[in-house]
Amino acid sequence: MAKQIKKLNVAMIGHGFMGRAHSNAFRQVGCFFDPPYQLQLKVICGRNRGEVEAFAAKWGWEEAQTDWQSVVVKKDVDVVDICAPNHLHAPIAIAAAKAGKIVLCEKPLAMHVTEAEQMANAARGAPNLVWFNYRRVPAIAFAKQLIDRGQVGSPYHYRATYLQSWGGDPDQAGVWRFRRSEAGSGAMGDLLSHSLDLALLLNGPITEVSSLIETFMPGREVDDAVLTLARFANGSIGSFEATRLATGCQNRNYFEIHGSDGAIRFDLEDLNRLEVFDRNDTADIQGAHNVMVTGPGHPYSSHFWPPGHIIGYEHTFIATLSDFLNCLSKQESFHPNFDDAVEVQKLMDAIQSAAQRKTWVSIAAPSSVLRRSS
Amino acid sequence: MAKQIKKLNVAMIGHGFMGRAHSNAFRQVGCFFDPPYQLQLKVICGRNRGEVEAFAAKWGWEEAQTDWQSVVVKKDVDVVDICAPNHLHAPIAIAAAKAGKIVLCEKPLAMHVTEAEQMANAARGAPNLVWFNYRRVPAIAFAKQLIDRGQVGSPYHYRATYLQSWGGDPDQAGVWRFRRSEAGSGAMGDLLSHSLDLALLLNGPITEVSSLIETFMPGREVDDAVLTLARFANGSIGSFEATRLATGCQNRNYFEIHGSDGAIRFDLEDLNRLEVFDRNDTADIQGAHNVMVTGPGHPYSSHFWPPGHIIGYEHTFIATLSDFLNCLSKQESFHPNFDDAVEVQKLMDAIQSAAQRKTWVSIAAPSSVLRRSS
Amino acid sequence: MAKQIKKLNVAMIGHGFMGRAHSNAFRQVGCFFDPPYQLQLKVICGRNRGEVEAFAAKWGWEEAQTDWQSVVVKKDVDVVDICAPNHLHAPIAIAAAKAGKIVLCEKPLAMHVTEAEQMANAARGAPNLVWFNYRRVPAIAFAKQLIDRGQVGSPYHYRATYLQSWGGDPDQAGVWRFRRSEAGSGAMGDLLSHSLDLALLLNGPITEVSSLIETFMPGREVDDAVLTLARFANGSIGSFEATRLATGCQNRNYFEIHGSDGAIRFDLEDLNRLEVFDRNDTADIQGAHNVMVTGPGHPYSSHFWPPGHIIGYEHTFIATLSDFLNCLSKQESFHPNFDDAVEVQKLMDAIQSAAQRKTWVSIAAPSSVLRRSS
Amino acid sequence: MAKQIKKLNVAMIGHGFMGRAHSNAFRQVGCFFDPPYQLQLKVICGRNRGEVEAFAAKWGWEEAQTDWQSVVVKKDVDVVDICAPNHLHAPIAIAAAKAGKIVLCEKPLAMHVTEAEQMANAARGAPNLVWFNYRRVPAIAFAKQLIDRGQVGSPYHYRATYLQSWGGDPDQAGVWRFRRSEAGSGAMGDLLSHSLDLALLLNGPITEVSSLIETFMPGREVDDAVLTLARFANGSIGSFEATRLATGCQNRNYFEIHGSDGAIRFDLEDLNRLEVFDRNDTADIQGAHNVMVTGPGHPYSSHFWPPGHIIGYEHTFIATLSDFLNCLSKQESFHPNFDDAVEVQKLMDAIQSAAQRKTWVSIAAPSSVLRRSS
Repeated sequence: MAKQIKKLNVAMIGHGFMGRAHSNAFRQVGCFFDPPYQLQLKVICGRNRGEVEAFAAKWGWEEAQTDWQSVVVKKDVDVVDICAPNHLHAPIAIAAAKAGKIVLCEKPLAMHVTEAEQMANAARGAPNLVWFNYRRVPAIAFAKQLIDRGQVGSPYHYRATYLQSWGGDPDQAGVWRFRRSEAGSGAMGDLLSHSLDLALLLNGPITEVSSLIETFMPGREVDDAVLTLARFANGSIGSFEATRLATGCQNRNYFEIHGSDGAIRFDLEDLNRLEVFDRNDTADIQGAHNVMVTGPGHPYSSHFWPPGHIIGYEHTFIATLSDFLNCLSKQESFHPNFDDAVEVQKLMDAIQSAAQRKTWVSIAAPSSVLRRSS
Repeated sequence: MAKQIKKLNVAMIGHGFMGRAHSNAFRQVGCFFDPPYQLQLKVICGRNRGEVEAFAAKWGWEEAQTDWQSVVVKKDVDVVDICAPNHLHAPIAIAAAKAGKIVLCEKPLAMHVTEAEQMANAARGAPNLVWFNYRRVPAIAFAKQLIDRGQVGSPYHYRATYLQSWGGDPDQAGVWRFRRSEAGSGAMGDLLSHSLDLALLLNGPITEVSSLIETFMPGREVDDAVLTLARFANGSIGSFEATRLATGCQNRNYFEIHGSDGAIRFDLEDLNRLEVFDRNDTADIQGAHNVMVTGPGHPYSSHFWPPGHIIGYEHTFIATLSDFLNCLSKQESFHPNFDDAVEVQKLMDAIQSAAQRKTWVSIAAPSSVLRRSS
Repeated sequence: MAKQIKKLNVAMIGHGFMGRAHSNAFRQVGCFFDPPYQLQLKVICGRNRGEVEAFAAKWGWEEAQTDWQSVVVKKDVDVVDICAPNHLHAPIAIAAAKAGKIVLCEKPLAMHVTEAEQMANAARGAPNLVWFNYRRVPAIAFAKQLIDRGQVGSPYHYRATYLQSWGGDPDQAGVWRFRRSEAGSGAMGDLLSHSLDLALLLNGPITEVSSLIETFMPGREVDDAVLTLARFANGSIGSFEATRLATGCQNRNYFEIHGSDGAIRFDLEDLNRLEVFDRNDTADIQGAHNVMVTGPGHPYSSHFWPPGHIIGYEHTFIATLSDFLNCLSKQESFHPNFDDAVEVQKLMDAIQSAAQRKTWVSIAAPSSVLRRSS
Repeated sequence: MAKQIKKLNVAMIGHGFMGRAHSNAFRQVGCFFDPPYQLQLKVICGRNRGEVEAFAAKWGWEEAQTDWQSVVVKKDVDVVDICAPNHLHAPIAIAAAKAGKIVLCEKPLAMHVTEAEQMANAARGAPNLVWFNYRRVPAIAFAKQLIDRGQVGSPYHYRATYLQSWGGDPDQAGVWRFRRSEAGSGAMGDLLSHSLDLALLLNGPITEVSSLIETFMPGREVDDAVLTLARFANGSIGSFEATRLATGCQNRNYFEIHGSDGAIRFDLEDLNRLEVFDRNDTADIQGAHNVMVTGPGHPYSSHFWPPGHIIGYEHTFIATLSDFLNCLSKQESFHPNFDDAVEVQKLMDAIQSAAQRKTWVSIAAPSSVLRRSS
């Protein structure tokens, strides 16, 4: 091969659903993009040797290991990618950061804001990433561009739901995502965190929240649903709903923004589209444009398939990784990183507190709001 | 009442589904519009005295009669409206025209083109109307405006379907619409005639057709389905499908036009909307506009309800009647009239012939193409 | 006319948008339904004589008056229908009730809960109605049937939005709906009241709320938007959003319910449809059924047009009136009545209070929960 | 790696859009599926050495070559995959088949039916595949299952369109797909061939066709659009439309089937969904089910991502390849193969002939109809 580019050896801790999505991104980023680094799938680490080895064979990892402590300090590892259950994010990330590794971590970053801040401090100065992958759905990246160019105008309303229904499925009862000690929370960390990250990206800081948290299923340790009202620093108001009991919905990660000049609507179950309302269209043909965000001219579109040939869930990880590697090469700050995730974590803590105290709760402004821009 | 406007006495022959829709229009046109005439619901005529009297009481007709021959020559009748089964259109219309009445007739105008031409000749010089009511769906009237102002550009494709499913319902087996002697045809006259009328309005004359006609139900006397390919005089090409056996569809009267500059899509089951694609939109937000054609600025919208408060099927008859009365008052030619319906009938005859002969069949140009404009 | 049925003389106070909708219902109820009374459009009353007379001529009212005090006590008036601005509801309704009239009143019933209770007390024992017309959208009445027959199962989530955008239109700035002294509130009384009434119908009493109320437009006296979280007595949780600044939305009165066995979704902009998810469908074809609620077998469907021939906004008033007249004839209690509207008013007061105090606020249970059933 | 499975060395001729899609499938099939062979990306071949080498580096091909004649006879090549322009399919496929290779070929198989039959004869006995990849869209494979289990009942109507709009884009004017000598046809071979293959799969043999072929763009050598009516051997009737000038449509490969018991609707622009109408649903909740075909229980779903996490265009190639390798291992016949593609080619020839002769044209039954089953 002709390319003479630096290699980066990757170690990944965890090999569940997210392990597959990350492995795929590591394998594919060089096919769809032109990253400034060549990634080597060096070590995959999990608790069960047989399973780790099978996973390694399937996805092309060179080594299979079972002890993350030794993996994160390996000399031939440049990048540590964490997709273990939530309670392991902090110890692994802090150990990897101390060992000088580039750290990539699944969301939610931590079990609570204190832990998140410890992780951010440990990773300070080193390149890092949190896998809020939906920022790189082309339609969402495009929504951000549209907002930045004034398509929506002065924002009035932000409305987000993340609706799934598998929480009612008895077959899923035993998974770690339902155990408080490993997951920390339920719909809150799993789903709402995504919605909050997107809200911060698209509509800026949230200043106060009111909230309601509910567990419907008997014996369940974590929340099934979170509802939140919010005021944003830009004067707009919003609502959030995340639930695992929205019968009939599989993955409806939806948001809608209404402003003085337009509106935008997105639904992850149809992620190649964005509805865009333009109040400056000729009056009698005003109506939401049904835009297929597959190019030409849309974010990432030239890297995937021709217009109208849709991409899927997995491509959001590939695009995230490409952007990260480009920032790394240029020594630019990548977003969303650990500091960005701390802000999400602050919001989740405030939402928890608001639900418990049954009042509105204010959120402290981030030390640097500028950090927020993606 | 303050208005000093001329009264028109109406006699209606037939009181089935269409009789209800027409009665409603006669009653309501003065509420929603400002017609230059005041309509009196004078005589309703049907075969069964008891049923006619009940209908008269319900809808406010002054007299109930059972003999159409005497009704159409009554001195105190100004307008004869025909919604009897198809085979009676010609005798009633011709008798009414000879008696100097204004004649309104349900579609399809006639059993075949010869009969249609006889009717058109009989009504020559007198005001007349054929109830191709869908021309006055606000979204379709708006589509016509958009096409006329160049929104679609040079047309390439016209695609129309009219899909219903009640032909498979055993409860409906006995209705007159399935008897050849009374209906003349099945989906052809009932559904396809509407699609053809709209195509002539929106895309101009058709020059040749190929076709396939099918009866699926054993023992049925009329066609269940008609499929047609067509070439238009403007160089575009199109297809038509009308069927009573499109399981899952109740009233999907749909059309779509693609041209060099845009596209338009309509579906009667959601008749308050029009999808409008504008190739001159900013490239990256090109996508069909989902336009709610309820105003402001849309055809008829100021006469019905505020934007977003939708109208229904019946309003298309009211709007048709309002336009007719305005033309009548101004002594302008109204469209669609008997001559327009003759063109539809010519097309249906050509489609029948093409199906039988299994070849393409040409359609003679109308004596005056200008007649086509609505 | 053959019918020998009791006549009811109607007086209507007000003749704006709602006056048109009510007049239409009075005119049309006897055509589409078989009401046990014959309604006479006796008196229309408004402030400007010229406008009242023009309205009377257009819609067929016998008399035009300008003094509501004398109208509501007229001996030849049986029914007083109120569609004047909100601040006049109480004085007119109380006067009419004292005069022994049947009272029909537009929503929101009153300016605040105390006034509403005074009205309910005044009307106690006499037949009365509040025009929460959306209960009689066929699809919503059908949703109620589905819920009652267990289609949704044990409810988890209720989500309602009522999104309009005309609040941002400078042409509308002068209307009474923006003046606090006449309207009492903005989106709250105009839009949210509808959503709350439907929630009470479909999901039962609400026990506590948190809320956020916002006025975006400078100088505007009333709220532009209200956001609310709610807990229902049945254990489910919900959110409400009503706004006049949802750019791109004209009349999106939407709700969605998710329960243990199914889900239901409705949007007023497409009011002839209901999406119904059935968790008991064969697993691999589970997906929301796109149901056209135009019959056969759907509420009111046999009274309007054949399946697939849609109805519009105005028909909800006609169906409401038909149900009311049937209850009147059978001396049964009609819903929604003034007592029902008091419950909506209590909720609005609690929502106002929650927004001001920035805490959750409890709602007292109604004296009789059974009153809620429609 | 632990697996001891046979390796297959692949040579691919061509490296355009399809070359990317195929390369991706070769790389990914082992990650998502458990194929009985391990594919080696051995040789990539194209005319321009620099471009071929860049492509090889990007997608991981071991060798880059420029002379297909020498590649197809290489001893260390087991599989020859053809994604060169259409006119090269036959010479390459026949040479590869003669050299005893497994042959995979892009669609349309050939420039005309004679050539296709020569290819099928050359490949007789050897495993082969034609990349009609849409058969393996999970929703389409599921549609096939539904039809086979009787969901649709006795079929009445089949309606297919394949609508693109890039034919009107001046930037695309120079591509080989517009040159008759290289492409053979335009929308016919490129788009209609897909629709025909799916129709044969889902609805069985076509017995006769009528057709219209049009070139709108001045100077264009190939057809822009094809319209066809068809009769199927099972008694149903259908229509087909393929065009590159459907302004507003990027990749609307759509079909709909209506039968005595149900209906099915698909659109490639939203390929993770299938609309399924079930006439056996409870009458009042009959309506098309909006089914997300992402599992559980749907074709291929367990191999990709969890329910609601959608796949894209590229996955159809991966699933096709997996099925092919499984057939190869079990020495079972794979479909669609060269013989299947011959049937598509016969249809295209008949459609061409029908358009030229302006009559209906019959299609000879395949030597073995059983061959059709996938």
